[in-house]
Amino acid sequence: MKKLLLDCDPGIDDALALALAAGSPEIDLVGITTVGGNVNLDLTTANALALREFYRIDDVPVTPGSAQALLGAGVRAESVHGATGLGGVILPVPVNGVTDGHAVDFIIETLRSAPGEITLVAVGPLTNIALAVRREPRIVEWVRDFVIMGGSYTRGNHTPAAEFNIKADPEAAAIVFGAGWNVTMVGLDVTLTAVVTESILDQMRSLGRLADLVVPISQFYGVVEADGGPAIHDAVAVAHVIDPSLLKVLPAVVNVETVGTYTSGMTVTDFQLDGKVPNASVAVELDVDRFWKLVMEAYGRLAATIA
Amino acid sequence: MKKLLLDCDPGIDDALALALAAGSPEIDLVGITTVGGNVNLDLTTANALALREFYRIDDVPVTPGSAQALLGAGVRAESVHGATGLGGVILPVPVNGVTDGHAVDFIIETLRSAPGEITLVAVGPLTNIALAVRREPRIVEWVRDFVIMGGSYTRGNHTPAAEFNIKADPEAAAIVFGAGWNVTMVGLDVTLTAVVTESILDQMRSLGRLADLVVPISQFYGVVEADGGPAIHDAVAVAHVIDPSLLKVLPAVVNVETVGTYTSGMTVTDFQLDGKVPNASVAVELDVDRFWKLVMEAYGRLAATIA
Amino acid sequence: MKKLLLDCDPGIDDALALALAAGSPEIDLVGITTVGGNVNLDLTTANALALREFYRIDDVPVTPGSAQALLGAGVRAESVHGATGLGGVILPVPVNGVTDGHAVDFIIETLRSAPGEITLVAVGPLTNIALAVRREPRIVEWVRDFVIMGGSYTRGNHTPAAEFNIKADPEAAAIVFGAGWNVTMVGLDVTLTAVVTESILDQMRSLGRLADLVVPISQFYGVVEADGGPAIHDAVAVAHVIDPSLLKVLPAVVNVETVGTYTSGMTVTDFQLDGKVPNASVAVELDVDRFWKLVMEAYGRLAATIA
Amino acid sequence: MKKLLLDCDPGIDDALALALAAGSPEIDLVGITTVGGNVNLDLTTANALALREFYRIDDVPVTPGSAQALLGAGVRAESVHGATGLGGVILPVPVNGVTDGHAVDFIIETLRSAPGEITLVAVGPLTNIALAVRREPRIVEWVRDFVIMGGSYTRGNHTPAAEFNIKADPEAAAIVFGAGWNVTMVGLDVTLTAVVTESILDQMRSLGRLADLVVPISQFYGVVEADGGPAIHDAVAVAHVIDPSLLKVLPAVVNVETVGTYTSGMTVTDFQLDGKVPNASVAVELDVDRFWKLVMEAYGRLAATIA
Repeated sequence: MKKLLLDCDPGIDDALALALAAGSPEIDLVGITTVGGNVNLDLTTANALALREFYRIDDVPVTPGSAQALLGAGVRAESVHGATGLGGVILPVPVNGVTDGHAVDFIIETLRSAPGEITLVAVGPLTNIALAVRREPRIVEWVRDFVIMGGSYTRGNHTPAAEFNIKADPEAAAIVFGAGWNVTMVGLDVTLTAVVTESILDQMRSLGRLADLVVPISQFYGVVEADGGPAIHDAVAVAHVIDPSLLKVLPAVVNVETVGTYTSGMTVTDFQLDGKVPNASVAVELDVDRFWKLVMEAYGRLAATIA
Repeated sequence: MKKLLLDCDPGIDDALALALAAGSPEIDLVGITTVGGNVNLDLTTANALALREFYRIDDVPVTPGSAQALLGAGVRAESVHGATGLGGVILPVPVNGVTDGHAVDFIIETLRSAPGEITLVAVGPLTNIALAVRREPRIVEWVRDFVIMGGSYTRGNHTPAAEFNIKADPEAAAIVFGAGWNVTMVGLDVTLTAVVTESILDQMRSLGRLADLVVPISQFYGVVEADGGPAIHDAVAVAHVIDPSLLKVLPAVVNVETVGTYTSGMTVTDFQLDGKVPNASVAVELDVDRFWKLVMEAYGRLAATIA
Repeated sequence: MKKLLLDCDPGIDDALALALAAGSPEIDLVGITTVGGNVNLDLTTANALALREFYRIDDVPVTPGSAQALLGAGVRAESVHGATGLGGVILPVPVNGVTDGHAVDFIIETLRSAPGEITLVAVGPLTNIALAVRREPRIVEWVRDFVIMGGSYTRGNHTPAAEFNIKADPEAAAIVFGAGWNVTMVGLDVTLTAVVTESILDQMRSLGRLADLVVPISQFYGVVEADGGPAIHDAVAVAHVIDPSLLKVLPAVVNVETVGTYTSGMTVTDFQLDGKVPNASVAVELDVDRFWKLVMEAYGRLAATIA
Repeated sequence: MKKLLLDCDPGIDDALALALAAGSPEIDLVGITTVGGNVNLDLTTANALALREFYRIDDVPVTPGSAQALLGAGVRAESVHGATGLGGVILPVPVNGVTDGHAVDFIIETLRSAPGEITLVAVGPLTNIALAVRREPRIVEWVRDFVIMGGSYTRGNHTPAAEFNIKADPEAAAIVFGAGWNVTMVGLDVTLTAVVTESILDQMRSLGRLADLVVPISQFYGVVEADGGPAIHDAVAVAHVIDPSLLKVLPAVVNVETVGTYTSGMTVTDFQLDGKVPNASVAVELDVDRFWKLVMEAYGRLAATIA
């Protein structure tokens, strides 16, 4: 079992990523922390709480973190995720609330408590991670692996040059990429191939109660990301933790542009190392078929659990 | 008595500011936090510990904070403060150590514990304050007043445009000035008038054991800040807390430049409000004579205490 | 007699500067070139033509230049100079038109024709000068002196950090300051002391037909630059050519910020040379009384000429 | 016959592009202008003169232009093109020299002389074009088509984000893309597919005297651009003029980043128009086989001419 701490901003694809973690026996989810991103922090936190109970992972602590970006106004993506962050789906009101404290402290203490054991996966803006790494630089040594969904080496989505999670807090991303650890960057280059096709949607329809969530949110997502259907970005980062062989990654030097007029939030990726020390492992190819096999098996297990 | 929490990077003028606080009956020093700045964090912390015992303020907790700037490499000022940060002066090795925990947490918890009561004075790079305000945004409501030594509206010292403390962490300064509180900015515009003249130096010579510290560090400082003698910047910020009438302040909108090729770290100050809401009270004039009267009286008291 | 080529954007203070040149026997005005600045190029050119005939300097060629800044949208100052650029004053419609060709070529050819003889004075945005210097880099050797009204080392007027002429085309200014010549920078630091007081205005009232222009435009200017009356910036640059002893100048390295969020268009001025080669002589003090004496004598001569 | 004015910085691929133009009956080459780029201006001009005589296009005027970028130090690519710009090849010393005047004026006057008739192709840094368009904005109306080799929407070569020609003068490129015309951007996205393979090299070997030039320079180029062989970038832009059907182009909004720390010189390309007016036609696909067919036929004709 791999211990996984998930920093997220649910968010439709966050919900689908969390379902993957919840349904995977390989994963021991040790905590969920939230950040303002796709929607505001109060909503991402409320969604995390509701998803936790819906997925019956009640013992996983949910701890809220940063409401706003380090600098700048931040950006939101309500048009992609709906006003509440989960498309139009209304989950049952959760019974339990958040854990006392702040995500930054939770991340630090959790990693401190089990050096070398916990994989940190961040699938929202990197504000919490940046604050944690500056508050306690040793987390870069304590973490087992650090994986993000974010960035790209070929294109953006929020702007032509920048992916949403990085653009939402470029300075945080710059801190995180410069922190001295190796960042596994699962970016748009691969996540845009993780598309919910009609065939996948059909398989999802047989998931019983779980289908009531994953089908409509996938469809909602699909409405706005027209080209080829919705890509469930965040789930690819979690899938990588479960089975690293799904992604081909290459070492690279990644610098986050914080200054550019048209390029702020871009992850400038240099694969030509020429002696430079890489700070990232950048995903360049996803085995899409095996990815969906992994996801649907996990969803099947989760569906059985919550039936 | 005014409760004062001092975030500092001793540093010669930090030492002189701390002596002012220690010798002032109007001040209840509730904590000292340290940050990397004039010299590295390990030295600023060691200096704070040594000064605490030298000044006999043993019950004031010293808590170390950030070793490096949010972004960028940071800058140091060993040429101004000496390799150890206190000119060539060697203080007795301190007996007691730092308080457990991190400056960011100490600042948050201290302000939380006494809303409306504590004045926060920051005389180094603003890294700790920025991390605190993003980790717990409510400190802007809990603080009584927030005063910095830093910035300028007319000139720089580390570069032609930027003052050292702001240049050392421009992004932190941008966070701090944008946090929603009123920053009292005690900048070079006034602190450069707080010069240790020969006459002041003569008065310092009669301070007994205290003279053994303040005279040589002032002279060391003077060697490198030739023009008109050394200006003890940080002490002006503390003096303002003791007697606000020493400084004339004007409301202004202050924006911190983080991007400019030649201007990064500049506090761009707009006194023409025209309906804009000011975020700062900017010191524009110091009553130098009364400042030195205040300082020398406090030093006299402190000298008697530590004799 | 000093040969002077004036690049300008009339503009109230341009008109007042041109009157100074026209009324000064020390000056041989060899050409007027225009640039978009205070108002659009068609207006600055029309004003230059009308002023030429009003001042009876009919043999001075007027050549229009750049309508827009190198990059960016440029800025205009109609609120300061009126919709037409000359307050509300309507001058007689000029009989003669512009010289064929473009200001950039005129500047290059004029300087080429008399190496070492001609002083180039630019009192608007530096677009024409930048294009000339890149089109023909040798003008920096051919020019006798190069003087601008623009910039500042203490403050801005268009923004808190930037003076209007530099802010209107920062990249052009960066080219000009980096071109390898010595720029005499007559900035706000001194021009803001060249104020049309009530007493000066009284003297102007006795200038006959010339008074019909200079009095109302000074008053118009005064309406919007409330503090202490209108400062006739551009005339100080021309006055410096007539009598260099009016201004105290210091060598400095001036870099133009083109990138800053809050500081674009700032002339970052470093007087601490420490071995660096200065690229500018920066005006730091104006002998205001002698300045006005010079100006009023010239205006008197011009008034007699055009009576 | 299409009239073509070529602004270039020979340069190996410039030489290969010029050979294509010289050997194509569809092209009436009306002028060659030079710019500092791959190597310094004196070398690019000397190479243009030598190539003109080697290719027997003696009546085509060669006019030198800008030696340096608008701003910044410019960049050179001697490691790619050799110290002289033509690999190790030594051409016969040319008999004739440059035309009087400057490239900027030549471009303006040539376009003015035949509105709507001349296609301007720029395959070096865009300094000359930027100066021309600011000196005479009407060239955007006079030109028939404007085609550049430069930029990219997926990657850089000089830096991870920026292609060489744009990086060499980002401000010039920003001026050019913002000038109000449609820029046909032939970027790395397609030119990197125009590779001199071993099979192409074999065909080149049969070109007689022409082979003595094109074979070794292609091989020289190949040494440093290892991956898949040398890509003759500039020739693709000329090929597009000869036969527009070789390239698939898409409308886009292209903004040139001039500010970014890691992205300066990047052509940020937005294909999602959503009502925005495109300023560029961006090449997205090259018919490589037909491209080489066109090139080798032209080279064959040229080889016969110069035999």
